[in-house]
Amino acid sequence: MSKITCLEDAFIHELSDIHSAEKQLTRALPKLARAASNADLADAFMAHTDETQGQVERLDQIVESMGLKLRRVKCLAMEGLIEEGHDTVEAIEKGPVRDAMLIVGSQKVEHYEIAAYGSLITIAQSLGYDEAVKLLKETLAEEKTTDEKLNKLALKKVNAEAMEHSREMA
Amino acid sequence: MSKITCLEDAFIHELSDIHSAEKQLTRALPKLARAASNADLADAFMAHTDETQGQVERLDQIVESMGLKLRRVKCLAMEGLIEEGHDTVEAIEKGPVRDAMLIVGSQKVEHYEIAAYGSLITIAQSLGYDEAVKLLKETLAEEKTTDEKLNKLALKKVNAEAMEHSREMA
Repeated sequence: MSKITCLEDAFIHELSDIHSAEKQLTRALPKLARAASNADLADAFMAHTDETQGQVERLDQIVESMGLKLRRVKCLAMEGLIEEGHDTVEAIEKGPVRDAMLIVGSQKVEHYEIAAYGSLITIAQSLGYDEAVKLLKETLAEEKTTDEKLNKLALKKVNAEAMEHSREMA
Repeated sequence: MSKITCLEDAFIHELSDIHSAEKQLTRALPKLARAASNADLADAFMAHTDETQGQVERLDQIVESMGLKLRRVKCLAMEGLIEEGHDTVEAIEKGPVRDAMLIVGSQKVEHYEIAAYGSLITIAQSLGYDEAVKLLKETLAEEKTTDEKLNKLALKKVNAEAMEHSREMA
């Protein structure tokens, strides 16, 4: 971690971290879509790929309009979460049980982002960065909607399919 | 990741993962309390140490009452998040800016847990594990309260102190 001596540094550090996280995610989401068997889940991953691309652009907009310079930060938490997604795909054959675990992993990803954007908004509010607060809140709302969508998909479809599958195997 | 072929396996895997995460956290939180300079923040970390110990016991209660056997899982996401906490302590001298960044890191930890317990509850609901759902919801409520407490502390105290500190340095 490079030096952080004031709250402005903290803002730029966290902005760089989530920028790295979102970029990693735009590459991982299409792989998750291919690994899913439930069509609604695959669609949700593809829709969130486009949304994530838009979120990267929103971050770029903040950087440009404020004349900031992002730090070279690789978000290790997102790297670990994506790695766990790969493990899930390797450890479980394509089908509803894998889908259920892909949703678990994706909700952890969404919550990492919810925490990151929440903290960024709090810091930006303290610093009086009103335009950044507005843009970051738009993304935060999208992440929360995606998390809820995944939760409903698990509860109403995927987990039931996974139990049906387990009964067929028994 | 060891084999997961049904939703019951997924439940045990995720239960083992969060058990590992909580155990790691009981060791990390007292260090965070010592690294904080704001007394309210240090108190919050110590209070959450006790609470986390109670959450481990609640998990043990689920394992025992259902006659389950936890898997050998090390939660790598929590390991990474705690590592980032250590980096923060090393990179920033003791004071309000470090406190602000400790809150950012802690909120990411809380959201990892919120996602993990949320998924566990969804899976347990699908499986009809009513007693587990009840206990897991108690912990989820505690994690959400801790997250809100940290957010208020940042917004009402720590970030203002960090800005004051930056002005003194300038």
